[in-house]
Amino acid sequence: MTDKEKKIPYKIYLSENEMPTQYYNVRADMKKKPAPLLNPGTLKPMTAEELGHVFCDELVQQELNETDPYIDIPEEIRNFYRMYRPSPLVRAYCLEEKLQTPAKIYYKFEGNNTSGSHKLNSAIAQAYYAKKQGLKGVTTETGAGQWGTALSMACSYFGLDCKVFMVKVSYEQKPFRREVMRTYGASVTPSPSMETEVGKKINAEFPGTTGSLGCAISEAVEVATSTEGYRYVLGSVLSQVLLHQSVIGLETKIALDKYDIRPDIIIGCAGGGSNLGGLISPFAGEMLRGEADYRIIAVEPKSCPSLTRGKYVYDFCDTGEVCPLAKMYTLGSQFIPSPNHAGGLRFHGMSSIVSELYDQGYIEARAYEQTEVFAAAEEFARCEGILPAPESSHAIKGAIDEALKCKETGEEKTIVFGLTGTGYFDLTAYQQFNDGTMTDSIPTDEDIAASLAKVPQFPGNETK
Amino acid sequence: MTDKEKKIPYKIYLSENEMPTQYYNVRADMKKKPAPLLNPGTLKPMTAEELGHVFCDELVQQELNETDPYIDIPEEIRNFYRMYRPSPLVRAYCLEEKLQTPAKIYYKFEGNNTSGSHKLNSAIAQAYYAKKQGLKGVTTETGAGQWGTALSMACSYFGLDCKVFMVKVSYEQKPFRREVMRTYGASVTPSPSMETEVGKKINAEFPGTTGSLGCAISEAVEVATSTEGYRYVLGSVLSQVLLHQSVIGLETKIALDKYDIRPDIIIGCAGGGSNLGGLISPFAGEMLRGEADYRIIAVEPKSCPSLTRGKYVYDFCDTGEVCPLAKMYTLGSQFIPSPNHAGGLRFHGMSSIVSELYDQGYIEARAYEQTEVFAAAEEFARCEGILPAPESSHAIKGAIDEALKCKETGEEKTIVFGLTGTGYFDLTAYQQFNDGTMTDSIPTDEDIAASLAKVPQFPGNETK
Repeated sequence: MTDKEKKIPYKIYLSENEMPTQYYNVRADMKKKPAPLLNPGTLKPMTAEELGHVFCDELVQQELNETDPYIDIPEEIRNFYRMYRPSPLVRAYCLEEKLQTPAKIYYKFEGNNTSGSHKLNSAIAQAYYAKKQGLKGVTTETGAGQWGTALSMACSYFGLDCKVFMVKVSYEQKPFRREVMRTYGASVTPSPSMETEVGKKINAEFPGTTGSLGCAISEAVEVATSTEGYRYVLGSVLSQVLLHQSVIGLETKIALDKYDIRPDIIIGCAGGGSNLGGLISPFAGEMLRGEADYRIIAVEPKSCPSLTRGKYVYDFCDTGEVCPLAKMYTLGSQFIPSPNHAGGLRFHGMSSIVSELYDQGYIEARAYEQTEVFAAAEEFARCEGILPAPESSHAIKGAIDEALKCKETGEEKTIVFGLTGTGYFDLTAYQQFNDGTMTDSIPTDEDIAASLAKVPQFPGNETK
Repeated sequence: MTDKEKKIPYKIYLSENEMPTQYYNVRADMKKKPAPLLNPGTLKPMTAEELGHVFCDELVQQELNETDPYIDIPEEIRNFYRMYRPSPLVRAYCLEEKLQTPAKIYYKFEGNNTSGSHKLNSAIAQAYYAKKQGLKGVTTETGAGQWGTALSMACSYFGLDCKVFMVKVSYEQKPFRREVMRTYGASVTPSPSMETEVGKKINAEFPGTTGSLGCAISEAVEVATSTEGYRYVLGSVLSQVLLHQSVIGLETKIALDKYDIRPDIIIGCAGGGSNLGGLISPFAGEMLRGEADYRIIAVEPKSCPSLTRGKYVYDFCDTGEVCPLAKMYTLGSQFIPSPNHAGGLRFHGMSSIVSELYDQGYIEARAYEQTEVFAAAEEFARCEGILPAPESSHAIKGAIDEALKCKETGEEKTIVFGLTGTGYFDLTAYQQFNDGTMTDSIPTDEDIAASLAKVPQFPGNETK
């Protein structure tokens, strides 16, 4: 019998001493670097001092570090990682069998921790640096709740205060997410609240509003910058977050190398870009250094298609337009995906690292409708056991499509995709899918053009 | 630095080729065997033929097998196990540190699969034997939903039809559990339904009833026995289920032996007894063969204290009194735990294997109130990361208490407990705890005496 027939190895676990001890900073290997964050007032690159009002000092250094390829992971962070890492690299034998494909499919599964996703990788790092700086606590916003859950776990571990502004509609519709955060000791405030100036203003202007991520960010930033001993933390988009998430890609590469497996295609879902960027960093690094060649595919939802239909310009990272400007593929900071889109991946822009790699041709992108994504999720769940998060299911759909192409051509390609999390808190969406009431929502060209027309005409924005 | 200071190894994973290839049948090593199931009509031991009307043939053989200590795990089941097993044995370094105890605490974590608990270990075995027998499908009941979820996953894997009767109140209050089952292709019917004779009868007698586990069992058994190609499956209590769950204990023992760790105390939560029985089987086997000595502690809720306050007699396994009689520690088949008890562990009786081992003195038992159990759950979650199921948290509370005793005495005992599952679907209970509205419910002596008085006076029931 072949290994395929015997289905071994099914899961590749690294031992604890094989885990990465350094993050990999892909920017160091990029000849053309991602564009710097700009101060929206001066349109000059944000300085460490300016960023230090909002973010922890060491995270600011990481944000600005474009030269060091490797940055040590402090022992305290590695100790926490060992509570749920290394995460398994799983061979999807059952899915291969079901698809009758000659392709070999592997997935890196990040869902086996209580936050349910890869977000914990960066949450624990950010909480550690906040603690090290002697801060009392951190603030953040959360929509779907994965990031808020991860951060509350991390703060609980380090004894930091954690203040989460949760978009009011999610606060009410996702009480279970809220309760996980409270169990870990976080305070969770529905946003807009009456605790901040910006919250009061929005409540006065729009009575009965159910909030937005942009508003929650503004509230979290206001509390962080106006409270002694607090800083603001963010769970995606930033280069520091991609740096922390590189543990996903590093572990994947170590596991593949250990078994002498060379991937042909690497697939990740893309919202703000933290999971995709983390997964592909070491592989993109090899490409940038001319050591290897891979196809890297970013999969996004058709309802929020920043890479496939956005524009590569400077834009605000938040709807409230209080954050620095980032050069990124964007649909415009005022773009709001249709509310009938169930999962995450609703961010209007894309991490500047991923955007630049995409612009340089190292990454391809494709977009799927949510009903086909949930069909892929169901197919995967039924044969591979795991109930995937809607976000992760975009990558599943991408992997299935590539595997079916191999079936046509007979090519034995090796596909690796990132399974970022579990769908236990997304069952309202699964119910819609099960009931056949889920619909797709694809913005029209006019929608996108109208949103992009609102992007301010910063210098350089005309060029593309 | 010591290993404790370095916190290594944090998790002990076995490799796939170290996984058990045989189940361990503890009855083979018991000189006095558990009492046989009785036919409630004849009061004679149930024959294979009688049991074969309800259960799959091979499972009937396992149910009746008291002599073979080891029973091969078919390759198809082992292949599925490799999708989520071996489960990690984790050293609770952070909990030890928080408690400032010299004790070494380990837990075997069974929650890293989509069903969220150890139930999948038996579900996949039962589905396999049903498939092997050429059946079309199986029926079962579910209350909290862990078992129904596990069975729907297993049936989906083997292409079996899965019909779940879900207690109506749970069907309405736990829609997410229902949707997981539907995603795996199971049909989920609120019980009592209008699809069975017994359901129609109960609906007519008690209009508006929200159902009970006893009624759901009766409906599932009726459909299984009246439909060609169907059998009924059960997720706890039965000896076959404890046999399948022995993989928990076997893996635990292999991992401990590999690192030369000798446990002093083994702790498990106890509802129907499947997790506890599975975890302790290999260790109890050593005790029965005179090869080793351990303290084994069963932890149950004070709201449903079958071991600590029940009677060791023959009783019905179900409230509907349609199932065979089992000799077990029981509160009486008509005992209904207070509805303010949040978690599982609500079964009125206890597996006959666990009951007999307890009666012979191999197991001690203790009971806790639910508020102290949730306090232990929160303490564990905050330092060890994992959000535990309420059921599992009984074992956590037991382990913490033993570790605190070690702190007093200075003894460096090694404690192993079973962490059976995660609490993602129990957040309504966590919310009560977070809000301070959770209360305890302890039946009075009169309550229990009244319930036990309804146990039929079968021969031998007077003796204890």
